[in-house]
Amino acid sequence: METIIETRYALDTFYFLVCAALVMWMAAGFTMLEAGLVRAKNTVEILTKNVALYSIACLMYMLIGYNLMYPAEGINGFWPGIDWLLSATDHSPEAVLASGGEIYYSGLSDFMFQVVFVATAMSIVSGAVAERMKLWSFLAFAVFLTGFIYPLQGYWSWGEGFLDGLGYSDYAGSGIVHMAGAAAALAGVLLLGPRQGRFGPDGRARAIPGANLPLATLGTFILWMGWFGFNGGSELAISSVESANNVARVFVSTNAAAAAGLVAALLVARSAFGKADLTMALNGALAGLVSITAEPLAPSPAQAALIGAVGGGLVVGSIVLLDKLRIDDPVGAISVHGTCGIWGVLIVLWTNDGATWSGQLAGLAVIGGFVFAASLVFWAILKATTGLRVHPEDEAAGLDHVDCGMEAYPEFVATGSGD
Amino acid sequence: METIIETRYALDTFYFLVCAALVMWMAAGFTMLEAGLVRAKNTVEILTKNVALYSIACLMYMLIGYNLMYPAEGINGFWPGIDWLLSATDHSPEAVLASGGEIYYSGLSDFMFQVVFVATAMSIVSGAVAERMKLWSFLAFAVFLTGFIYPLQGYWSWGEGFLDGLGYSDYAGSGIVHMAGAAAALAGVLLLGPRQGRFGPDGRARAIPGANLPLATLGTFILWMGWFGFNGGSELAISSVESANNVARVFVSTNAAAAAGLVAALLVARSAFGKADLTMALNGALAGLVSITAEPLAPSPAQAALIGAVGGGLVVGSIVLLDKLRIDDPVGAISVHGTCGIWGVLIVLWTNDGATWSGQLAGLAVIGGFVFAASLVFWAILKATTGLRVHPEDEAAGLDHVDCGMEAYPEFVATGSGD
Amino acid sequence: METIIETRYALDTFYFLVCAALVMWMAAGFTMLEAGLVRAKNTVEILTKNVALYSIACLMYMLIGYNLMYPAEGINGFWPGIDWLLSATDHSPEAVLASGGEIYYSGLSDFMFQVVFVATAMSIVSGAVAERMKLWSFLAFAVFLTGFIYPLQGYWSWGEGFLDGLGYSDYAGSGIVHMAGAAAALAGVLLLGPRQGRFGPDGRARAIPGANLPLATLGTFILWMGWFGFNGGSELAISSVESANNVARVFVSTNAAAAAGLVAALLVARSAFGKADLTMALNGALAGLVSITAEPLAPSPAQAALIGAVGGGLVVGSIVLLDKLRIDDPVGAISVHGTCGIWGVLIVLWTNDGATWSGQLAGLAVIGGFVFAASLVFWAILKATTGLRVHPEDEAAGLDHVDCGMEAYPEFVATGSGD
Repeated sequence: METIIETRYALDTFYFLVCAALVMWMAAGFTMLEAGLVRAKNTVEILTKNVALYSIACLMYMLIGYNLMYPAEGINGFWPGIDWLLSATDHSPEAVLASGGEIYYSGLSDFMFQVVFVATAMSIVSGAVAERMKLWSFLAFAVFLTGFIYPLQGYWSWGEGFLDGLGYSDYAGSGIVHMAGAAAALAGVLLLGPRQGRFGPDGRARAIPGANLPLATLGTFILWMGWFGFNGGSELAISSVESANNVARVFVSTNAAAAAGLVAALLVARSAFGKADLTMALNGALAGLVSITAEPLAPSPAQAALIGAVGGGLVVGSIVLLDKLRIDDPVGAISVHGTCGIWGVLIVLWTNDGATWSGQLAGLAVIGGFVFAASLVFWAILKATTGLRVHPEDEAAGLDHVDCGMEAYPEFVATGSGD
Repeated sequence: METIIETRYALDTFYFLVCAALVMWMAAGFTMLEAGLVRAKNTVEILTKNVALYSIACLMYMLIGYNLMYPAEGINGFWPGIDWLLSATDHSPEAVLASGGEIYYSGLSDFMFQVVFVATAMSIVSGAVAERMKLWSFLAFAVFLTGFIYPLQGYWSWGEGFLDGLGYSDYAGSGIVHMAGAAAALAGVLLLGPRQGRFGPDGRARAIPGANLPLATLGTFILWMGWFGFNGGSELAISSVESANNVARVFVSTNAAAAAGLVAALLVARSAFGKADLTMALNGALAGLVSITAEPLAPSPAQAALIGAVGGGLVVGSIVLLDKLRIDDPVGAISVHGTCGIWGVLIVLWTNDGATWSGQLAGLAVIGGFVFAASLVFWAILKATTGLRVHPEDEAAGLDHVDCGMEAYPEFVATGSGD
Repeated sequence: METIIETRYALDTFYFLVCAALVMWMAAGFTMLEAGLVRAKNTVEILTKNVALYSIACLMYMLIGYNLMYPAEGINGFWPGIDWLLSATDHSPEAVLASGGEIYYSGLSDFMFQVVFVATAMSIVSGAVAERMKLWSFLAFAVFLTGFIYPLQGYWSWGEGFLDGLGYSDYAGSGIVHMAGAAAALAGVLLLGPRQGRFGPDGRARAIPGANLPLATLGTFILWMGWFGFNGGSELAISSVESANNVARVFVSTNAAAAAGLVAALLVARSAFGKADLTMALNGALAGLVSITAEPLAPSPAQAALIGAVGGGLVVGSIVLLDKLRIDDPVGAISVHGTCGIWGVLIVLWTNDGATWSGQLAGLAVIGGFVFAASLVFWAILKATTGLRVHPEDEAAGLDHVDCGMEAYPEFVATGSGD
């Protein structure tokens, strides 16, 4: 009996770490997706932003965020976590055995899984503000979001805060991670304004094609794969029959929702625009994934597909609507993670009997409102101090030149292209 | 004893899910491989086809295929699987314990593993018909293959059908997945005809270089990695000493066959063409993988390498032969998956004493014959109704323009390139 | 009790195989990194080199290297391992049970994990000698390094050789894998000389930009992800509470060191060059990873970040220094793996009480000295016979044309670009 408790601890820890590696991989997915959807002249900058934000997220969450979000469950217990940083002792075999199985995974494996989530939230922001924001202002915001905003609202729900008490139900974070990221992005986009030439003199949106669609497609596949860790790991255990069944069910739902989201977006876009629109299809898959994230366990496979399909339709409508509102989001991140994040949180009510309208609406209002407001304040401070936006001439020339001093494809791009 | 049964159930389920994620990842591999090997003007279309076919495969197999292929082993037991779709109840802890270990993984994890296999079979088709087929006709075929053709022949072998009874032995699907995909592709290619300009007035083949070889190389690495899940997961269990040893052996064989296939193709191509031919080398690795897939367990490491090396040589010869026969397969899929699939099924006889000539030949004849014939009929129906091939002017201009309305690399391609 | 021993054997074997798949994936990472950092005209050649070296490494280590490195622990016990090649019998369930848990993973899973390590060492070399070395001379060196040099020095430390006896401590191979690869690379680079035009008439280094920075970024992310297997798997077990905790700690350290290395390199490069230098940032992440590899277990998260940050700073200085010394390393491999490999081996002394100055210095001297000297001799023999360097005209035209007969991006590159 003793050794079985140990073995299960080992299995759950291993499962957690595998899922963490998959979620870390999502950082590569966002990077490729965004690098494929911007113009060549802004590609080095978006690559730099993405590798830097992942790194900043990991360091800030380690330094501050984790202990802020899980003050009582942190390994050494107290924010600002000096003990944790300096020793990070884990559960002893004796403590594990004495707990009779209550302690069933390594504390550091929990940290590892959580730290890659905050990076995901931050990755959402980078695409929406692409092609016109100053690199270092963006990175300053990354410090703020990953060290403070995300962990604080995460504490309210996944920690032991009041949203949990209000009955807010969000399995893997349609609201806590995705809508939160989108809310932060929206605040930035509103203060930043649209890219040059994005809206014509008549107010109509003009398409600005991405430079490398195979990269965007690769990024979507990476995200899809990583999402198995994102949702599958959020069961937090796999070593019992029940939890193993649950993880399997989450995998099936996640995959079905993504597939249905892609097909729905492809069909909706075809009927609306007459073409098989690859970027809409990719956003449809991501929309399906975001939509199922708040509740991937309760739905049957058919329900999961339906939830994802609605998400895939919604994202097309949302992208068109944002264009009409002259909100410029180069990669569709606000629609994918915001609109479908809201949809995901609400549709929990369909399949999870434990969820309530009041709980879900409270979650949306509190998380969306807080992250949007806090972000708006911090973006405004940045705008008033370092500035948010590059000089118009630099924007026209491309951010790679001004911020990074190198080109992504120095041998490929013809002079004058990509305007 | 009870908890050990539960823990083993959890471990086998987790192993299955990890392998499923790796096989899902192969969809990205096929996508990158094919996107790298076609011309820039057809790249968006091949990307769209690949993301859509994966999604369609997942949905059709969920709706129909799975219950058709495994009628008695499906979780809820009966096709058309309405119960399954609407509830998908999994094995209860009580049932698992009562089985004494006979039930050793989650039913939904089994579905998850199977569903990504059908996507693999369909992915094989898309490369062979690239650069001239109508997108929506292709997707209609995807519905048919993944919902009906693949599951039906899969039932005959991996279900409880007559091929199993005849002694057909195919561990992870050299025949059932790879040759099946190639047979469907060949039928399409014959009805479709070669690309414009592929064969000169003298009948000689003219090379049409792929637009992005780093992508093709990445795709090959992704497939190689994913194949560890494809073959490794086909042991179906890992929680005993024997099954763990078997999975390890399968990993070693799979890797050795791929490595030897690559080296063999590189050397054969060098002696034949005088150059280190990267695309032949990549196809050599894939050839080695397909060759070992029918029996990755019985061979020793040296035998596995030899089996893969022969596959790597065969694929070069097969590609040259298809050129002579004026069969146009832009990515070499028919040679990799068809020719080497046959080789893989036959060479089972060398190392697996349980296999018989009659069983293996029956498998090849039945699977190859049925899939080819059924596909030919469906392709012919499509040809007579919606049409299979784009208009010659559209083919010259590129499928991206006509089908998708966007370019893969709008800033890179010089006017008039890629013809 | 018997079944728990079996289950733990299964879990440890599965963990080993998952880690091996992640390390295999690093081969794709090196390939993408190097393909992104060379010029378009040399891209097919570097892709071919990378896929071929991985394959050669797998075959040579299987044929010779593994039994040379682990003569007593090999499954069948004796070099040259004919038994092993021809049967590769694994531990029987009886032997596992009789060992009482002493034998806790499949012998073939151990081989699988080790074989991907030797490929990593060889991958380091290919980047440093890029853009001017003859393909087939390089592949001949790969045969030599992976079959003999690497296994021999590996035997001295990880086998049961004298370095282990001297107290040399190197958890996952900052010295044994990374510095060893860099030493072999340095020997080659010294005999090969710099690329045409790399240093001006005044001796100053001139930047030669890479052709595809998204690929280089993708490669870095792949390496980062794969490193969880590289370091995490080097614990060699996960099935006890203690080993599970250790693996979790290694994951956290590895990630923190990479993140801190990236941020440090980004900041150092900014203060030195005034720009956010993406390639330096990527090398900073890899530098952090190499730095933590010799001891990812003992450090706390904060210590790991500090070790990585110093590595990230060191790599920038080292790259600048090599430029001053007119040592031409197109991708910075000698700095990343050599300079930071040394740093990693030495900083073990900070956190691991069991390590000694004498042991660490002995390891550096023996491994570095032996690999450098043996490589220099073999490179020199190649130089005197087949020749190391392509003809100057071929170098100007690009290696793809002369060695491979195809272009990586036939439709993109403008005439005359990439010189």
